[in-house]
Parts: sequence; structure tokens; C-alpha cells
Amino acid sequence: MDAMGFKKTELICTGSELVSSKSNRYVPLFAAKLRPLGFRIYREHSVGDDLKAIAKIVACGLNSADLVITCGGLGPTFDDLTRQGVARALGRKLIYSKYAEQILKCDYNLSKLPPNFKNQCLIIDGAKMVENANGTAFGQIVAVGGKLLVVLPGPQSEWVPMFDNFIADNIKEFFKSKEGVIRMLRLKVADLREVAAEKLLRPVMRRFPEAQYTILAGANIAEFSFTVSGKRPSEAAVKLSGIEKACRKILGCAIYGTDEDTLEAAVGALLKKKRATVALAESCTGGAVSDALTNVPGSSAYFSGGVTAYSIGSKRSVLGVKKSTIIKEGAVSTRCAAEMAEGVRRLFKTDYAVSVTGIAGPDGGTKELPVGLVCFAVAGRGIKTRTFTRNFRHTRGDIKRCSVNFALDALRKIIQ
Amino acid sequence: MDAMGFKKTELICTGSELVSSKSNRYVPLFAAKLRPLGFRIYREHSVGDDLKAIAKIVACGLNSADLVITCGGLGPTFDDLTRQGVARALGRKLIYSKYAEQILKCDYNLSKLPPNFKNQCLIIDGAKMVENANGTAFGQIVAVGGKLLVVLPGPQSEWVPMFDNFIADNIKEFFKSKEGVIRMLRLKVADLREVAAEKLLRPVMRRFPEAQYTILAGANIAEFSFTVSGKRPSEAAVKLSGIEKACRKILGCAIYGTDEDTLEAAVGALLKKKRATVALAESCTGGAVSDALTNVPGSSAYFSGGVTAYSIGSKRSVLGVKKSTIIKEGAVSTRCAAEMAEGVRRLFKTDYAVSVTGIAGPDGGTKELPVGLVCFAVAGRGIKTRTFTRNFRHTRGDIKRCSVNFALDALRKIIQ
Repeated sequence: MDAMGFKKTELICTGSELVSSKSNRYVPLFAAKLRPLGFRIYREHSVGDDLKAIAKIVACGLNSADLVITCGGLGPTFDDLTRQGVARALGRKLIYSKYAEQILKCDYNLSKLPPNFKNQCLIIDGAKMVENANGTAFGQIVAVGGKLLVVLPGPQSEWVPMFDNFIADNIKEFFKSKEGVIRMLRLKVADLREVAAEKLLRPVMRRFPEAQYTILAGANIAEFSFTVSGKRPSEAAVKLSGIEKACRKILGCAIYGTDEDTLEAAVGALLKKKRATVALAESCTGGAVSDALTNVPGSSAYFSGGVTAYSIGSKRSVLGVKKSTIIKEGAVSTRCAAEMAEGVRRLFKTDYAVSVTGIAGPDGGTKELPVGLVCFAVAGRGIKTRTFTRNFRHTRGDIKRCSVNFALDALRKIIQ
Repeated sequence: MDAMGFKKTELICTGSELVSSKSNRYVPLFAAKLRPLGFRIYREHSVGDDLKAIAKIVACGLNSADLVITCGGLGPTFDDLTRQGVARALGRKLIYSKYAEQILKCDYNLSKLPPNFKNQCLIIDGAKMVENANGTAFGQIVAVGGKLLVVLPGPQSEWVPMFDNFIADNIKEFFKSKEGVIRMLRLKVADLREVAAEKLLRPVMRRFPEAQYTILAGANIAEFSFTVSGKRPSEAAVKLSGIEKACRKILGCAIYGTDEDTLEAAVGALLKKKRATVALAESCTGGAVSDALTNVPGSSAYFSGGVTAYSIGSKRSVLGVKKSTIIKEGAVSTRCAAEMAEGVRRLFKTDYAVSVTGIAGPDGGTKELPVGLVCFAVAGRGIKTRTFTRNFRHTRGDIKRCSVNFALDALRKIIQ
């Protein structure tokens, strides 16, 4: 258990792709599911499809944590070795389960299992099987002394429902203890740098020294999280809301959400509440603002559509930007941004419209218009069109992501 | 050293966000930079801002690997503890460097360092300092017996140039040995499932048993990689090209690229070669195809723009889809997809146009039009418009990503 009363989890993700070519997107998902159970991830390890390496890290994990979760390497192909690695770490046998065979035959309507399904029926001696509604790999839960080892398949569509429907309850049941309550809150802000946020919030950290704080910087967004503990839920809740109030007083409307909120969902909720619609005119973000907005389920209620006007010709012919604007001010200018936003609002007949035009790089920058310079506009029914200019840094991807978040946040602040 | 002759690296990424709320995107970047130096990542560990945990995992890494790299936790804020953790693991002191102070004063034009910069001047006893052109944290290189420990700052814009300009040479210099040559090739295919790819390629794996193979599934794309070793570069190259030829014979034009190639860059290169332009009409992908295409630097040469027609009204008014099509066939139909592609091609006056319309879910599905059903069309100057229908699965995000890759791949195959 750590200072805050969280129990320790070691997360072990297996798969050669995770140590070579692919990013591991699972840590935040597991962390969010474990937090309400009173667990935090102490360490995450990514290991290739290497039997010895898997066995070693599982043994090491059981040494230091209360809960060890493995994810991946249970598939039917030759390089899936997690079952074998876990069994070796525990010094236990793998046992062929006739019951598992029966379930697979029934699920897949087979009279005989194909050879590569046989591996799927191997269960660690003493493990509890967990059914998988979306794949052929069973989950496994093994009690090892006072510790728990959970073996899950890799695809998110398989392990998430297994975790939600079975594993969470098994973890709760196994670790019945209730030695205190932990609460955590994440406040999310946009258009504020990590260092600036820390400076602003230092008085809060000094006033509430018993809490733990972390600041996380993103693409033109940042996240400030604090964790408190208490003997009873009400005690922890009071502490938490005290800190939250102090932070909100300082940060005000820079806060767009808490915990799992996203900026695009915050904007969507606002538009829904005001029964307003929006359209987008994008140049350097190339459709990424539109992509973000439509990642929110139900976004069709307020998002009518948009135009990616990547060429100057399309800014003119599709969005109606004036020839004189292009000649006198250029395609990266607040004037052009304003005409783009107004043009796309006319085209899609929406209440609001947002536009982005800038230099995403890596080439195409000049002294007057350097890479990272981005102009924005927000137009709306009955309001004067507002424009903004920002200088973002780093890679083409960074500049696109920062621009997406700035555009969404500018719209949010104006709708509010 | 492993079976293929690669030396082992342990990558340690620090930062509480990496075990709570953020995905670690660095592993593929480091893996790609280490491979040509003859190193592979044996394990990656993410650890929170916890002095003891950092010290423990650094010590453990030095135990099992030839090269240990830490990334992150060198910033000026209270929770940056990697320097201290590494020093503790090595049992060495941190020494205040007047030279580092001088460099920071000069770089930031300061007569006196602010208090939080002082931490930045602490160097591990015996370490080599590496200057950072884009931040305040110095890199550090420490020889520990026959092993090498490299300490890098977390932001990509800082560590990438440091690695390319200094660290790579230092690693080469330190591990001068040349016991053999390793070559790896990744073949990338679209619209082919992992299991199908394995089945197709099993004869190749049987014919060349001395190589190592991995299959990685993505969103409607997959990646087949093989690694060979040889005494001389020519020997390894001959083996590699033998396997490549055998694979290409089987997979043919399903292969869109190798190694670091992306599907969007492959499509871009083809368009550039044919001096052709393209426009996009997106519904359920919400601008994500356009976003992917414009992630490629220089894409403005062939990408004119696109329309995200999220509402039925905008499909009609902006893209010119016929009222009868919407009524008789619906907005998710090959007929509608074809009219969207043809409409956007007229609007942007391009050589080609691609459209996507489907049900991304999680709601809005029916028995006839289930979640995951997506229709595509590719229109082009002088060719008959081609349409496609696919059923994708899982989450809204998965369905969007699969659709993006299918759309790009369909265009690629038609241009080819």
C-alpha cells in the first residue's frame, strides 16, 4: 500500500509489437478502472513475446505488488506465449480444460476444434476461468498467497467487458479490506502551460499539504490532479471539494472539465445544451478538429459538417474567401480565418462556425509567417466574428494537435 | 545479446501520467533509433514520479541489459525525480555543475539562475553531460562497468535531437564490437486480417526457419516483420531479400509499404508520382481520412481539400447527393457514397475523389444497417466510379480507424 492508501498493481503488457513498433494505449484505461477499486498502477512493463522475459517479469511483479495483471499474448498464433510464461513464473502446470473446449465448440459451432484452438483450452493449475464473449482466449484469475494474478487477452474489445463484468468483482471480493477511502480529482485546462499552471496553483498546494499533486502537460491543454485520503467517504469528499474550490477560484473558465472529460465532449455538451449547431473550416489542421468533434458519440446532433480547404483555390471557390484578402493579407491571416468561418457558416447554415489556417510545417515557414503560426476565427449568429493568433512549436503533429485544442477551446469560451 | 545478435536495451519512462492518464508513445520511436545500432528493446517500464521506484527499476535494468535509457523526470517542477533516482541506483552523488549553470545563464540570457533552474545543474558523479538545444535539462551518459546508462529529458522535441546528434554516436563508440549484422524488414499490408496473413505466409516461415517472425494487427492493416542475421552485411541482405521476394509473391499489391512507411504516405507518394490531385467526402470518418492525408508533410501538393458532410442536409446541399438517393437507398449506401465522391470531385475539381459513409456507432444501428457497416466510393477522371462495402467491428474509434485505412487503400489500389 502506498502513502495514500492505494494498493499496488503491476501491469504487464506482452507482445513484441509493444517493444518495437506500437504504442501501448492501455495504461490510462487500466488506471481508470483500477482507481475506484483502490488500486493504482505502480509500474507498467511491456515485454516482447519471449517466454523467459514474461516469466521473469511476472515473478518480479508478484514480489512487489498486491495485484498483477497481464494483458496480451493469449491468441492462437505461434508467438502467443503469456499462458506459458505465467505458468512458469508460478511453477504450475497448464491443464487442458475439456470445459473450455466445450464452450469454444459451442460458441463457434464446431464439431471438432482446429489445432490452433487447442492452446486456448490450456488453464493454469488452480486458476479460475473467465469467459470471453468476444474472442477465443479465456481470462484466468489465480490467487497466489495474499496476492492476485489476472491474465487477460490483448484486444480491448475482449478484455474491457471481461474486466467490467467479472474481474472487478473478483478483485473487490479477494481484497475485502476497507482501511480507508481514497479520492482523486483531475481538473483539465486549455490554453495554459504546465509551468504557468504550477505557478498559479502553488498557493493551493501550500494550503493543502496533505494531498498529492501531479501536473500533466498535453497539446495546449494541461491536467492538474490531486489525491486525498480519509477514514470515511465523507471526510475524503470534503477534503477534495475544498481543494477543487480553491483551484476553480484561481483557474476559472480555463477549466473545461474533470477526470475523464475531453475537450471535444465538453464543447459537444455545451452545444447540445444551447441547441446550437456548428460547422468547421480547416486548413492546416486538415480535418483534425472535425475528427475530434465526431469522436464523441451522438455528435451528429450539433455537428453539421465542415470543409477542409487545403488549397488556396478551394478557400476561394468553396468557402468564398475574397481574392483581395488572399493577395493583401495572405491565406494565413486573421482576415482569411474570419472569411473562412463566415463562409462555412453560410454553407452549412449553422449557429456557429470555427476556422483554422496556419503553417503546420516542417517546410513552408518564412520570417514573417514562421512554422507554428496559426490563425483562428469563431463566427456566430448575431455575434461579431472573433479572431485569434497563436504560435505553437515542435513537430507538424504537435502543431496540429495544439491547433485542434485551441480551436475547440475558443469555441467553448465563446458559447459559454 | 539475444538469439539474433541484438544487444538488449531496457527503456525506463518516468512520469506519474504514464501510469495513470497518458499513453506512452515513445517505444516505437526509441526502437526505430536503436535498431540500426544493433540494439532492441528487451523491456519497457513506465514508472511514476517515485524516487524509490525509479531507483529500483534502474538497478534492475542495469542487471539484465547492456544499455539502459531513462526518459523523463528531468524538468524543473517538484515532481521531477529521475536524476535523484538514477544517482541512488548507482550509489553515486549528484554534483552541482558550474559549467551547466554557465550554459543555462547564457542560453536564457540570465544574470542569476531562478531557484528551480538549480536542479537542472545537478550532474551524476562521473557522467558526461549532453547539451539540450530545446530545453533546460541536460542529458547524461554514465558508463557502469561494461554497460551504458543514458538519462534523457521527457519531451520528444528535446530528446530526439539529443539522441540523433550525440547519444547514437556515444552508444556506437562505447559498444565498438562488431560480431555480426542484423537486418529486419517489416512488410505492411491493408485489408487483410492477422490470422489470414499468418495462414498465407506460413509456407514462407517454413521455408526460411532461421529467421524470426512477428505479425502485428492494426486497424484493417497488418504488419509482418522478419529478422535475419549474418556474418557480413551482404549475407544478411541476401537472406532478407529472399524472404521479401517470397512474401511479395504471395501478398502482391496488398503490400503498401515497408518499415516506417505509412498508408497515407504511400498514397501521397503515388499521387505525387502521377501528378494527380484528390478530394475527400467524409461522413462517419468525420474528417479523419483528411487528417491522415495531411499528416504527411508536403501533402498540399496533391490534396486539395474535402467536405465532412455529417448531416443529411449537407450531403444534399454541399455535395449534391440526390433527394431520391437519400429516400430510396438511404445515406449509408453505395449509391450515396458514389454521389458524394462525384460531388466532391466536381466541387474541388480534382483528378480523384474518395467518399466514406457508414454507421460508426455506438448507437444508430439497425438490423439492415448495423453499427460498423461502411460504404466507400472512389471516383476519378475518365474512370467508372467504384464502390465498396465493409463490416467493421468494435468501438466507434476502431470503426473510424478501419474506415480511414480502407478508404486510403482503395484509392491506392485504383491509382496503381
